[in-house]
Amino acid sequence: VIELRALSGLPEVEPGADLAALLAAADHDPRPGDVLVVSHKVVSKAQGRTRELAAIEPSAQAAELTERHGLADARQVQAVLDETAEIVRAARGVLICRTRHGFVCANAGVDTSNAPDGHVVLLPRDPDGAARELRVALSHRPAVVIADSFGRAWRHGQVDVAIGVAGLAPLDDRRGRSDRAGMTLRATWIAVADQVAAAADLARAGKDSGTPAVVVRGLQRYVTESDGPGAAALLRPRAEDLFT
Amino acid sequence: VIELRALSGLPEVEPGADLAALLAAADHDPRPGDVLVVSHKVVSKAQGRTRELAAIEPSAQAAELTERHGLADARQVQAVLDETAEIVRAARGVLICRTRHGFVCANAGVDTSNAPDGHVVLLPRDPDGAARELRVALSHRPAVVIADSFGRAWRHGQVDVAIGVAGLAPLDDRRGRSDRAGMTLRATWIAVADQVAAAADLARAGKDSGTPAVVVRGLQRYVTESDGPGAAALLRPRAEDLFT
Repeated sequence: VIELRALSGLPEVEPGADLAALLAAADHDPRPGDVLVVSHKVVSKAQGRTRELAAIEPSAQAAELTERHGLADARQVQAVLDETAEIVRAARGVLICRTRHGFVCANAGVDTSNAPDGHVVLLPRDPDGAARELRVALSHRPAVVIADSFGRAWRHGQVDVAIGVAGLAPLDDRRGRSDRAGMTLRATWIAVADQVAAAADLARAGKDSGTPAVVVRGLQRYVTESDGPGAAALLRPRAEDLFT
Repeated sequence: VIELRALSGLPEVEPGADLAALLAAADHDPRPGDVLVVSHKVVSKAQGRTRELAAIEPSAQAAELTERHGLADARQVQAVLDETAEIVRAARGVLICRTRHGFVCANAGVDTSNAPDGHVVLLPRDPDGAARELRVALSHRPAVVIADSFGRAWRHGQVDVAIGVAGLAPLDDRRGRSDRAGMTLRATWIAVADQVAAAADLARAGKDSGTPAVVVRGLQRYVTESDGPGAAALLRPRAEDLFT
């Protein structure tokens, strides 16, 4: 049995906030083996990873992309470019980017929703490191997943994925193990941390955005003593990418 | 609070089996508002959607693809081609296909794992229809999601997605609603049914494959009286596809 419970009682997170202390004070009952899933936005805010649009001077490239693709605001586009290692596609009002961390997502994860007025929120610096820091600061050292919502190439809607992980096996490699009929499994290699992020969003979605943290209970078999390889292990290397 | 519980006591599913009757007899406690997530494989088997490899004569195209891309078995490739509307990519031992239903996935969903000896399992015929049929045959008419594991273009591992849906809102469209700061959300359009499929897999994974069904409790806000648009609503139309 798996149980998911959104944490209530978390205040608005300000730059420099001690996120671990805020989470520890929120209404929950931490137990060993729990997984704490945190929306990336509160991590970014605590890190001060926001930018004021008025302070951004768009480059010629940002202005050109904005005009050519009918984007909304060249200063936002500049913020996206500053987070981007490679533009994968530019079309229909969105830039699909590979971020400097290696994530492929819309607008390099730069987001205006739930941002302070006139600001954008960036992805956290070193999300795996941020997950490790949160983990060690929380009682019972829960596994920690930092989540963001990503779109998909061939499906509508977004699903939450793991962009930072500590203390949880990000992948469950069952390739080559036998199935019940004794045959080799085709390609059963489960993105556990991404499924945990997606599950946690269900406990949050439909509510207002004041519930950025969810406790998941019942995943002890994936919770590890060490911090493990993190969400970096979920990134398909550029050389294996068939779609860029 | 959301709770996920794998159903035990489901026997091996044979062609022509009454899947609803088998699910009704399995060990669970159905309640109104529950979501029943079923692995596509038992649906396919009940529909007789398996093929014996020995009875397949590979076409010249199947033989050519097999040789050029180092694939394992031209008869399996023929089974894939027979389910395929369009080959999206062929590389590194895998065919990425758009199926006749419109799903983009590896090998058009044709699978050898947990298949009867010498057979492959195909995706179900009309998965949304199969979900609707299951729903109406079960007591308390739970929402039904039929799930399969899909890879992702830029991330390692697979996550379960919804290929058939009845009685559950597949998407939660929060685009344009205000967030807490009063700004417009960027693109918050949640693929609810895919997140439900992913969550359910966590309740199954790590166990043997004899647990193809999971009951999800606590998602009443997404459960609908009518069957709704089904998983078809999750497919990005070919004309909006940036990556084929």
